[in-house]
Amino acid sequence: MAELKAVAGRIAVGREREADQPRSLLAVFGRDQPLRLDAGVELSPFQVAYQAYGTLNAQRSNAVLICHALTGDQHVCNRHPVTGKPGWWETMVGPGKPIDTNRYYVVCPNVLGACMGTTGPASTDPRTGMPWGLDFPVITIRDMVRAQAMLLDRLGIDTLFAVAGGSMGGMQVLQWAASFPQRVFAALPIACATRHSAQNIAFHEVGRQAVMADPDWRGGRYFAEGVRPHRGLAVARMGAHITYLSDAALHRKFGRKFQDRDNPTFSFDADFEVESYLRHQGSSFVERFDANSYLYLTRAMDYFDLAADYGGMLANAFKATKTRFCVISFTSDWLFPTSESRAIVHALNAAGARVSFAEIATDKGHDAFLLDEPELFQIVAGFLDSAATARGIAKV
Amino acid sequence: MAELKAVAGRIAVGREREADQPRSLLAVFGRDQPLRLDAGVELSPFQVAYQAYGTLNAQRSNAVLICHALTGDQHVCNRHPVTGKPGWWETMVGPGKPIDTNRYYVVCPNVLGACMGTTGPASTDPRTGMPWGLDFPVITIRDMVRAQAMLLDRLGIDTLFAVAGGSMGGMQVLQWAASFPQRVFAALPIACATRHSAQNIAFHEVGRQAVMADPDWRGGRYFAEGVRPHRGLAVARMGAHITYLSDAALHRKFGRKFQDRDNPTFSFDADFEVESYLRHQGSSFVERFDANSYLYLTRAMDYFDLAADYGGMLANAFKATKTRFCVISFTSDWLFPTSESRAIVHALNAAGARVSFAEIATDKGHDAFLLDEPELFQIVAGFLDSAATARGIAKV
Repeated sequence: MAELKAVAGRIAVGREREADQPRSLLAVFGRDQPLRLDAGVELSPFQVAYQAYGTLNAQRSNAVLICHALTGDQHVCNRHPVTGKPGWWETMVGPGKPIDTNRYYVVCPNVLGACMGTTGPASTDPRTGMPWGLDFPVITIRDMVRAQAMLLDRLGIDTLFAVAGGSMGGMQVLQWAASFPQRVFAALPIACATRHSAQNIAFHEVGRQAVMADPDWRGGRYFAEGVRPHRGLAVARMGAHITYLSDAALHRKFGRKFQDRDNPTFSFDADFEVESYLRHQGSSFVERFDANSYLYLTRAMDYFDLAADYGGMLANAFKATKTRFCVISFTSDWLFPTSESRAIVHALNAAGARVSFAEIATDKGHDAFLLDEPELFQIVAGFLDSAATARGIAKV
Repeated sequence: MAELKAVAGRIAVGREREADQPRSLLAVFGRDQPLRLDAGVELSPFQVAYQAYGTLNAQRSNAVLICHALTGDQHVCNRHPVTGKPGWWETMVGPGKPIDTNRYYVVCPNVLGACMGTTGPASTDPRTGMPWGLDFPVITIRDMVRAQAMLLDRLGIDTLFAVAGGSMGGMQVLQWAASFPQRVFAALPIACATRHSAQNIAFHEVGRQAVMADPDWRGGRYFAEGVRPHRGLAVARMGAHITYLSDAALHRKFGRKFQDRDNPTFSFDADFEVESYLRHQGSSFVERFDANSYLYLTRAMDYFDLAADYGGMLANAFKATKTRFCVISFTSDWLFPTSESRAIVHALNAAGARVSFAEIATDKGHDAFLLDEPELFQIVAGFLDSAATARGIAKV
């Protein structure tokens, strides 16, 4: 317990300050510009933290919006201000990379409900001066996208050249294309789906129950009580992490190898390397993420069901769209399997949209979209280059 | 908390008494008959609780041993003394059923390390008069089988007509065939593997961490402190339960249906039916299972690696075996996929064993071995009937 409290103290001066005072660009929306939420309430005031890379051209036609995943943030290709690690998509975004910051102006906002500077449950509720906690309204993917659209208005960007993202980021891409078709020239939904499956809701629910079972969660009011539900959140992360990989990847990486020994210890220590790896995933995650944010963002994903918003006909979500789509899935992704991407493609075809589709062969599972996958880079670069030519964006 | 304590009080008078004084048949082994464990220690005294159905014939040739799975017990086809529910394999075992108790004498022991009367961490340590807790030695699948062999010695059964089981029960079947080939006429390993995969170890480790993260676990000494780690064990069960089903089964059963409502509540209540179902799985499990037993039995499965005990050559585990095998897997089982069963079959073929193999098409996932699967019943009945004829067991 003493150790956990020391950790809580250390991150309080680092990560938790980011919720209100991020080391990022910041757009603040006052009481005159409320965000209307699907839950039927208005959020006001609120703020969106974001990072930007490259230069917006004179025609304002080269902006690319990157939408991050559940546990990602806006730090796409710069050193992370809390962990000190490289950005989460440096392989994809940067000078000379597939999403080339020499050619495109890249913006990545922290999503609504997260904990790195955009308003969420870890942010200070102006009515009380304390973090929102569970008083924060439950939000949806559509709410995230509405907040992003307000950010783009603020930045004077009418039409995005492209919007791209994987996993929960891909859900936002699809929502962008559905909610603001005239504002999206090209869309890149990767490793995602138009609705969260029963199995995925089930996995999320286990993670939420792990957080809420931790007595230090305190009904979501842990900030006020000077504790953090680190144990519960670590268990949630460990379980989720398995779903991001594949059986084959785990076998290749760890197999049944013992950790620093040749024989079992006949104990409950981390005997196997895979146990030790998972424990590390859990403990490092809690240092950079807020437990309530984890509840809100998983809930937003669970609620996502694009067809339901369009009378049960997915194709209606993309009716008369002029957006060009490139849909990408990975063979070993069992969280968002290729069948989900095919459903997107079928709906786009039914809507008469311009769409290309690639299923990339890899054993790396869902996380492949974050990893070194040459075929992924090649497809994204090619799709964007062709779209950029059509859009009249100068080559570099 | 008051509610949890009330539950703990109620089960204390029911389930927890079973650990020492089971409402089952009981074989007690005194200090003169210690059980030698793989961990290098001897367990003594110890006891094995078991159920028996049917009649042992004069030749003592018609005994079938049923090995239960991780959270199963010996109550195969009688009303459960704690939950009041029917036995867990009533579809498979009973008069006129595929494992016909009119023809066979069926014995099912509670496994070593479990909590329904065979010695395990919930049993009283004779040295202290308190439950063993984490002082109980870590056990293996082979230890379970050794204890079962001692039970059969006690019952005067030299050779089993058959040994059958699914999942962890299937691991015991394979271990029986390897350790005591001369004592097994026919073997039916269902939905199992000869070693636990990295992904399966990972899922088990998340479950153990969920239990150990519960402050009421108290380092395994919860009995002494009058508490039970119900929240952690419920989370562990919820996560594990997802792995017993399939994406398709969850979709068919629940899809994205809301629980008793038409629209989302925008809250963290169990909005979706699948959430409500999982919560029920968690809360009902903790009333019938011991948290430390869950740690010990998952550990035993993680350690299982039959080839490793035979110089890395799986076929050597079955060298010169005369046992007839029927290996069964299910198409939608992703915990023990068909590839694992094929590896068993290949090893048996390499060892020159008599083996038949069936992959049953079903969307029910790993749990299919416990469910109403007519093809499964037909295959088991046919295999046993043919083997019984060869063994000279009279028809009924």
